[in-house]
Amino acid sequence: MPKKPSKTVTNAAADRGSERTSNCRVALVGFGTVGRAVAKILCEGGNRSLQLTHICNRNVERKRQPWVPSDVIWTDDIQSVLNSDVHIVIELIGGLNPAEQIVRGALQAGKSVVTANKQLIARHGPDLLQLAGSKGCQLEFGASVAGGVPVLPALRTGLCGDRLHGITGILNGTCNYILSRIENARIPFSEALEEAQARGYAEADASEDLDGGDARAKLAILALAGLHTRVAPESIRARTIRPIDAVDFDYAAELGCTIRQISRADLKEETLFADVGPCLVPTDSPFGRVHRNLNLVLTSGQYGGDMAFLGAGAGGDPTAVAVVSDLMFVAQNVGAGRRDVASYVSTPGISSDFETPWYLRFFVRDRPGIVARLAQILAAHHLNIDSLLQKPGYDKASLPFVITLEPCRDALLRPALEEMAGLDFAIRPCLSLPILRQE
Amino acid sequence: MPKKPSKTVTNAAADRGSERTSNCRVALVGFGTVGRAVAKILCEGGNRSLQLTHICNRNVERKRQPWVPSDVIWTDDIQSVLNSDVHIVIELIGGLNPAEQIVRGALQAGKSVVTANKQLIARHGPDLLQLAGSKGCQLEFGASVAGGVPVLPALRTGLCGDRLHGITGILNGTCNYILSRIENARIPFSEALEEAQARGYAEADASEDLDGGDARAKLAILALAGLHTRVAPESIRARTIRPIDAVDFDYAAELGCTIRQISRADLKEETLFADVGPCLVPTDSPFGRVHRNLNLVLTSGQYGGDMAFLGAGAGGDPTAVAVVSDLMFVAQNVGAGRRDVASYVSTPGISSDFETPWYLRFFVRDRPGIVARLAQILAAHHLNIDSLLQKPGYDKASLPFVITLEPCRDALLRPALEEMAGLDFAIRPCLSLPILRQE
Repeated sequence: MPKKPSKTVTNAAADRGSERTSNCRVALVGFGTVGRAVAKILCEGGNRSLQLTHICNRNVERKRQPWVPSDVIWTDDIQSVLNSDVHIVIELIGGLNPAEQIVRGALQAGKSVVTANKQLIARHGPDLLQLAGSKGCQLEFGASVAGGVPVLPALRTGLCGDRLHGITGILNGTCNYILSRIENARIPFSEALEEAQARGYAEADASEDLDGGDARAKLAILALAGLHTRVAPESIRARTIRPIDAVDFDYAAELGCTIRQISRADLKEETLFADVGPCLVPTDSPFGRVHRNLNLVLTSGQYGGDMAFLGAGAGGDPTAVAVVSDLMFVAQNVGAGRRDVASYVSTPGISSDFETPWYLRFFVRDRPGIVARLAQILAAHHLNIDSLLQKPGYDKASLPFVITLEPCRDALLRPALEEMAGLDFAIRPCLSLPILRQE
Repeated sequence: MPKKPSKTVTNAAADRGSERTSNCRVALVGFGTVGRAVAKILCEGGNRSLQLTHICNRNVERKRQPWVPSDVIWTDDIQSVLNSDVHIVIELIGGLNPAEQIVRGALQAGKSVVTANKQLIARHGPDLLQLAGSKGCQLEFGASVAGGVPVLPALRTGLCGDRLHGITGILNGTCNYILSRIENARIPFSEALEEAQARGYAEADASEDLDGGDARAKLAILALAGLHTRVAPESIRARTIRPIDAVDFDYAAELGCTIRQISRADLKEETLFADVGPCLVPTDSPFGRVHRNLNLVLTSGQYGGDMAFLGAGAGGDPTAVAVVSDLMFVAQNVGAGRRDVASYVSTPGISSDFETPWYLRFFVRDRPGIVARLAQILAAHHLNIDSLLQKPGYDKASLPFVITLEPCRDALLRPALEEMAGLDFAIRPCLSLPILRQE
């Protein structure tokens, strides 16, 4: 039976803690799903040391909530927030404009900033960190990647003693949902997308998710925090998941694999190999087992080896946990002016020229000699075929079949693919996917 | 092709960082496997801001390494280290004595401490944290649980904004190695243990690992850091893995499960339900897929849901990463006197009375009426049988068979097990294992 519980405060530590962090005034800018969840956690009062003083949003009157304490100031005037005596501004409006101006304005005014804004940090992170440092304040962005999965905080703390050389992740919940749906229901891409849109897992214009823009912004942030490399998100190659067909899951399964949107960055000497896009991953690998909106990040370090982080990559509450955690971290250091992410940042060369095995899927108008012709082109480019798969039962007028290649550099494969694109029997461009053999 | 790389220092941040942390003098006490790995990382010079000044060990002369800079002082006199001007003492000698005196002495002298000592923190963590707080210095112990897996740093940072209510983990590499070996080779426990000892995965006296002492110390630390509960490791029930037999893996497989040593703590109202010992876990669950010396920790939070952390749980280099990461964290805060783990700690009641389905394995001298007798006892105690498994082909003089029970509290099962222990056909005590249905 449970013993009678008792509560004690470890006095010195608690007193010191509250002394340092009490009267830490916080303004919340942006009162959408995440903003509301952050306010809820702050108002539910687990943390007396953080005092929410302002909520700033356009048309703020229709946003008012009865559970917010009456002394919180509701405003749509960001300037009044920046002119106030708050210590920390939480930026949750997203996008570049006006978020960038707000964050710069706050830092200029000597206020620390917590943000979940991946586009802003991916594009301007190093500059903003420098600005924060020069003003003796802090900028934290733990919620900008992988929602509530504490990978950025881990890079900042428990892994900072290692020398990381690789980061690989499933970072986009929309792609993961759509690919999981095609996998499980063998429906066409377009149907899976419509379903995701109907359920609110994809926006009306989902290009940013599907074509890799969202994931490569996150990858740029992970590379900054973990590999200490400054890389413009646009310089990372992004491949779309749109051409993925149900038949690709059939063939992937033949190879013991499934298909996921993978974001990966490998630092080798002074080049950052980076790529975002669909890859074949072993079904029984950590990546193959990630379904729905979960995020997974694997880090590889010189000393500590591989670490995996798995959790909810999105959603108001998990993302709010990341924001509030950053807030508590910043609050404990207000006045200390500390800055530990990427104090030394290199600007490496960027390449997508990974050496990897490949999955090539063709749709052809069937006739004799096709395989011979393709094999001839591959041989001429010194590319070795690892397997040739043709499952029975498909329409001969639009016949899918697959060739897998032994590991070769992307740059060697491209010319062969271009030559194949001109063949008259090809009725769709060849789909080429890297095969990840990790683990 | 890679572009030509260039390197830039983000000046303000880097200058500020090195200004804050330069001249941070560090003494290493204990120069075993982890100590050497820590020294290696520090001497390989990735971090110019940390200066290793002392290495302290018994018989230090025979420990000297040529790669350690000549200005490092080698000593076996701990008092000279405590009297020196070092800022941070790294304690890596392990055990309670003299580690406790050294850590207390360092904190008393106003030096921050980084330690990997699980027994010390499990027993004296709250007091030592209080002492550190009162002296304006820091105590970090990220390496004390799960080696290089950054779960403690994540609890301190990225998850601190959540309200965690559960932590479950595979925390002992020795048990995991032995159970994996029995699983894969279907060898007896004693043979798997001998093999582990021969390969250096288990000590000559492995009681601390096998009987759960090691894991419950780690669980007590996780409960302190994540659930903010102060719990003496001895008050956590520990069950041994010694009775696990190869046949248990046969029956577990029938149930879609395997067997792992699981450490779990659930905070419900003001009771901490805690237990360490072998459990059935689904083969396709995260726990079922953890092999060899990997560690896995799952946290459950009110807001962020479940998070999983996986990585190397032991080994010199991964553990050293955790130590150096703590060191960098402390160095960035020298003088700030911050203390954020468990500033509010409760002392809940402790219980091992989980409600769970059960696996009961019997070895009997076969004769008619055994099942009827056991079923009668279970019924008399209001325990519902879920399944009854008897695989063919075993020796009738020592016949294993299994009963699984629908979920019931541990406290209800005990009296039934005691009654069964008196039956004359039982040739070994009944083995009862909780079945984890998580995920």
